[in-house]
Amino acid sequence: MPKPIVVIALGGNAMIQGNQRGTIEEQVKNITETAQQILQVIPNWRIVITHGNGPQVGNIMLQMEAGSHPPYNRPILPMDVCGAMTQGQIGYLFQNSLRNLVIKESSQGRLEIRKKVKIITIITQVVVSKDDPAFKNPTKPVGPFYTLEQANLIKKEHPEFTMIEDAGRGYRRVVPSPDPIKIYEREQINTLLLNGFIIIASGGGGIPIVKNEDETISGVEAVVDKDLAGERLAGDVNADAFAILTDTDKVYLNYKTPKQKGIDQMSVAELEQYLKDGAFGKKLKGSMGPKLKAAIRFIKAGGKKVVITKPEFAAAALEGKAGTTIIP
Amino acid sequence: MPKPIVVIALGGNAMIQGNQRGTIEEQVKNITETAQQILQVIPNWRIVITHGNGPQVGNIMLQMEAGSHPPYNRPILPMDVCGAMTQGQIGYLFQNSLRNLVIKESSQGRLEIRKKVKIITIITQVVVSKDDPAFKNPTKPVGPFYTLEQANLIKKEHPEFTMIEDAGRGYRRVVPSPDPIKIYEREQINTLLLNGFIIIASGGGGIPIVKNEDETISGVEAVVDKDLAGERLAGDVNADAFAILTDTDKVYLNYKTPKQKGIDQMSVAELEQYLKDGAFGKKLKGSMGPKLKAAIRFIKAGGKKVVITKPEFAAAALEGKAGTTIIP
Repeated sequence: MPKPIVVIALGGNAMIQGNQRGTIEEQVKNITETAQQILQVIPNWRIVITHGNGPQVGNIMLQMEAGSHPPYNRPILPMDVCGAMTQGQIGYLFQNSLRNLVIKESSQGRLEIRKKVKIITIITQVVVSKDDPAFKNPTKPVGPFYTLEQANLIKKEHPEFTMIEDAGRGYRRVVPSPDPIKIYEREQINTLLLNGFIIIASGGGGIPIVKNEDETISGVEAVVDKDLAGERLAGDVNADAFAILTDTDKVYLNYKTPKQKGIDQMSVAELEQYLKDGAFGKKLKGSMGPKLKAAIRFIKAGGKKVVITKPEFAAAALEGKAGTTIIP
Repeated sequence: MPKPIVVIALGGNAMIQGNQRGTIEEQVKNITETAQQILQVIPNWRIVITHGNGPQVGNIMLQMEAGSHPPYNRPILPMDVCGAMTQGQIGYLFQNSLRNLVIKESSQGRLEIRKKVKIITIITQVVVSKDDPAFKNPTKPVGPFYTLEQANLIKKEHPEFTMIEDAGRGYRRVVPSPDPIKIYEREQINTLLLNGFIIIASGGGGIPIVKNEDETISGVEAVVDKDLAGERLAGDVNADAFAILTDTDKVYLNYKTPKQKGIDQMSVAELEQYLKDGAFGKKLKGSMGPKLKAAIRFIKAGGKKVVITKPEFAAAALEGKAGTTIIP
């Protein structure tokens, strides 16, 4: 019987942490640590990995902005292209860290991992709807901070951009964050999975594309939440489990209050009730919201298990021995 | 019987031409034109596409240089990572241009192309030898031009860099251009090919990696010639033909002289004799040299046919009706 399939979604801190600038040394160190945790999952699961790209795409946008002035005068490319660039960058670094760990561990006989486990990174697009309400209400800040003067100049050059003031730190461009519908390369991913490869796909939430009336596709300047896109990916490969790895070991009720309490397991009905009751506390508004939304969607679409935990507990959480598990 | 396999190598001018800066409008226009030519090849061949990345990687290196100064202070990433970024960028743009043309043509019934032809871009590495003599003699100029003062400063920061004066235009970094040994992702590519996908792979000559003594792999800062890497790719997928598309319709004897004469077909023995005799003229030194070297290697390794021509003659050349064909 083939091993079950898990889609693993990695948070941005798996690559660039806190105030790091994202040097190659920082990225390789963080990625190697994360890959070491993923390695523990290999013996029992077939794996598709997806990941965030916030700091990396931010760096590219800043570098393009910097390089657009004299004496460089290089062109600024749109966000969908920048997203494709980060998929190449992160996929390359991650696949080689993981590949090297597989080679080391298997040669030392420490893990039930065959050396022939091979990895592939594919450029992945995610289909969103032209009519998604997000396109009328861009909310996701991207790229550099600007002064009011700079922001007005950019707005004049690009009347289609939406600029907002970001909490007193300056002005920023915001782009839509539409809902993912499906992974455009799902057949390619399933073919690779069937043939035993570990696949890195849909980085940064995937490159968002819309279908035109004649069925052709067009990239759009938007950011799809990587956990919601990861849920689509998990559905599209019929994953047995969806593992959302982040910077907390568990989901907590009353997070960061004296009554804080970690959850080992909850049904999707319990989760929905907690959300309705506001039981997770105020900290939820940040990045946990989309994770719980993605978990609900995966289970409601027929998925069997979602785990939310830190990378170091991934293997244990998939066996129900760590983290928070969400079940039907 | 399955259709024969062709590896198509596209020159840099398929994406960014002459003095273009490489704006998104320029790239999409050029890529769409090239994709339109590749489209004609689909009915009779299974296709793997590879491509150059010179202008794109040059832009990224310039943008990283520009963004490394205040107020941006973003990190400069090594060349292997920049190469991975261009594979994402170009693959994304090319696959969608080609995909959209497939959708349009098949819906209009103009070509014997089934709409289900799907495309995939994969991050591809090429294995080179640690002992390649190129590592002792870097020759390939990359990235920005510097003043002598800047060059000395960079040399102080990075004693491992080799800087040269480039024909009076300033100082530039040069990197090794080692010989490609094999495509690291050849199993992945063959799996996808077997399942009917058009694959975009080994962009920019592939990301060069070396194998360490413990069999782990490490990226290196080098540039592999894209036609020589394309030949390895063609060998690794057992291609029936290798099509090198460039800016000339044929290979010419005595190129750019009054005695110029286009070659329709030559055997690899004739080609080697021409090279020995210097029969191609002085212009050969440029980009045609590696193309002819790649052609000789492909045929000598058992390949049946190499064509060298412009993109617009690709389909005809593969039928022997245009371009230059090189045979055993």
